[in-house]
Amino acid sequence: MPRFPFIPREQEFFGLFEQSAQNMVKAAQGLQKLVTTCANVPQNVAEITDLEHQGDLITHQIIAQLHRTFVTPFDREDIALLAQSLDDVTDFIHAAADAILIYKVECSTPRAQELADIIVQAAIEVERAMPQLRHRSELKQVLKQCVEINRLENMADRVFRAAMGELFDDDIDIASVIKWREIYEHMEAATDRCEDVANVLEGVALKHA
Amino acid sequence: MPRFPFIPREQEFFGLFEQSAQNMVKAAQGLQKLVTTCANVPQNVAEITDLEHQGDLITHQIIAQLHRTFVTPFDREDIALLAQSLDDVTDFIHAAADAILIYKVECSTPRAQELADIIVQAAIEVERAMPQLRHRSELKQVLKQCVEINRLENMADRVFRAAMGELFDDDIDIASVIKWREIYEHMEAATDRCEDVANVLEGVALKHA
Amino acid sequence: MPRFPFIPREQEFFGLFEQSAQNMVKAAQGLQKLVTTCANVPQNVAEITDLEHQGDLITHQIIAQLHRTFVTPFDREDIALLAQSLDDVTDFIHAAADAILIYKVECSTPRAQELADIIVQAAIEVERAMPQLRHRSELKQVLKQCVEINRLENMADRVFRAAMGELFDDDIDIASVIKWREIYEHMEAATDRCEDVANVLEGVALKHA
Repeated sequence: MPRFPFIPREQEFFGLFEQSAQNMVKAAQGLQKLVTTCANVPQNVAEITDLEHQGDLITHQIIAQLHRTFVTPFDREDIALLAQSLDDVTDFIHAAADAILIYKVECSTPRAQELADIIVQAAIEVERAMPQLRHRSELKQVLKQCVEINRLENMADRVFRAAMGELFDDDIDIASVIKWREIYEHMEAATDRCEDVANVLEGVALKHA
Repeated sequence: MPRFPFIPREQEFFGLFEQSAQNMVKAAQGLQKLVTTCANVPQNVAEITDLEHQGDLITHQIIAQLHRTFVTPFDREDIALLAQSLDDVTDFIHAAADAILIYKVECSTPRAQELADIIVQAAIEVERAMPQLRHRSELKQVLKQCVEINRLENMADRVFRAAMGELFDDDIDIASVIKWREIYEHMEAATDRCEDVANVLEGVALKHA
Repeated sequence: MPRFPFIPREQEFFGLFEQSAQNMVKAAQGLQKLVTTCANVPQNVAEITDLEHQGDLITHQIIAQLHRTFVTPFDREDIALLAQSLDDVTDFIHAAADAILIYKVECSTPRAQELADIIVQAAIEVERAMPQLRHRSELKQVLKQCVEINRLENMADRVFRAAMGELFDDDIDIASVIKWREIYEHMEAATDRCEDVANVLEGVALKHA
C-alpha cells in the first residue's frame, strides 16, 4: 500500500505544535546555560534570540494554517491559544536573557539558577504532552503532564517570592534591585505561560478524550 | 409536589458565580483589615492566601462544568470570561497582600487604605449583581451595578495616580518607593478587573435582557 | 434614484473604526508634541486625556453595535479584538503622557522623541489601513500596512532596549531611572498594540480577501 503523498492538515498542526515545543525547550536550556556559566553572554543571548524568531515563525505558520483550514483537529480557539501560549513561554525566556544582556548584570544568582532549572523542567513536560495530542486514545495522558506543570509553576512562584524578599535584604545597590526584579519577573512569567499551555491542554483533553 | 432531586446545570453556574463573588468580597475585606490594622500581618495574609486558593477551585469547577455542558445559560465565552475576571480580582487582592508580607513593609499608608476601601465597595457591587443573572427579568438591573463599578474604578485610578506622584515627593527611601509602587499597582489592578467583570455583565445584559 | 435614508450597519462599523484610528493618530501626535516641546505639560496632557475618553466612547459604541447586529462584515471576535486593540494603543499613549505629568519629569529625552516619532508613524499606517476594510477588492492591500507596522514595532523595540540599557549607564538619579522606565514601557506598549491591530487585520485579510 503506497504511502500518502501528502500530510493531512490535521497532522500538520500537530507537527507544528511539536516544533514549537522543541524550540521552547532549546530556549529554556539556553537560559539555563546562560545563568549557570555566566560566560559568552552576548553569544548565548544571540542564540536565544534566534530561537525566539524561530518560535515567531512557527506560530505564524500555525495561525496562517488555521485561516486556511475548515476542519481542525480541535476547537479553533484552542489551537490559536495553544500556539500563542507556547510562543509566550519562549518570549519570556528571551526577555529574561535579553535583560541580563542589556543591564550588563555581572553574573547570575542562585535564585536565577533555581528558576531556570524549573523552566527547563516545565518546558520538557510541555514537550512530552505534545505527541499525545495526535491520538485520541492517548489524550487523557496529557493530564499527568498538566498536574506536573502546575506543581512546577507553584514551585517557581515560591522561589520568585523568596527572591523578591531577599533582593531588598541583601546589601546590593538599588540599581541591581531594579534590574534583577525585572529578570526574575520574566522568568516567573515563563512558568506562568507554561501553566496557560497546561490549561489549554486540560480543556482539550476534557472535551475530546 | 416533590422538590427536584437535582439542581439543573444552569443553576449550578449561577451558584458557582455567586460563591466566587462572595469569596472575592471576603478577600477584599481581608486586605482592608490588613492595611487598616497593620497587625498580625502573616496570619492575615495567610487567610487571604486561603481565599485565593478557594477562588482557584471555584474557577476550575466553572470551567470543568463548561466543558461538560451543552446548553449554557449564556454564551460560553462570557461564562469563561466572567469566571476568569472574578478570579483575577481575587488574585490581585492576594498579590497586594502578599507583597506587603514579602517586602516587610512596616505599616500601611492612607492611600493604601483609600484603595482598599474602594476595592471592597467594588467587590460588593459585583456580589450584588450576581443573583440578578438568574432571572432574565432582573438582568437589566445589573447595568446599575456596572455604572457604579465604573465610577469606583475611575476613583481608584485617581487615588492611584495621586499615590504614584506622592511617592517620589515624600522623603522616603527609594527601596520603599519600589515596594509601594508594586503594592499600589496590584490594588489598582484589582479594581480594573472588577471593571472587566462589569463589562462582561453589561454584554450579557445587552444580549439577553 | 434616491439616496438611502439610513446607513447600513456594516458601514457603521467601518465608520467607527476609522474614527477610532483618527482619534489614535491625534493622541500620538499630542504625545510627540509633548516630548518635543516640553512646554505646557498640563494642558497638552489634558488634551490627550480628552482623546483617550473619546476613544473609550467610540469603543463602547462598537461593542454595543456588535451586540445589536446579527450579520457583521467580518467575524465578531475580530471586530471586538480590533476595537479593543485600537483603544489599547490610545490608552498606552495616554499612560505615557500621564506618567510624564504625574512624575513631574522635567523634559523629554532623545529616546522618548524617537519612540514618539515611531508611534506616530505606526498610528498613521493603522489609519491608512482602515478604509481598505470597506471593500473586499482592497482588503489585500492592508497586508502592506501590516508589514510596515511590524517593521516599526521592531524599530521601537530596538530603541526601547537601548533606552533601558542607557538608563543605568547615565549618571542620573535612581528616582529618574524608575520614572523613565515606566514612561518608556508605556511607549513601547503603544507600538506593541499597533502590532496587535496589524495581526487582526492580517487575519481578516487572509480569511476574506
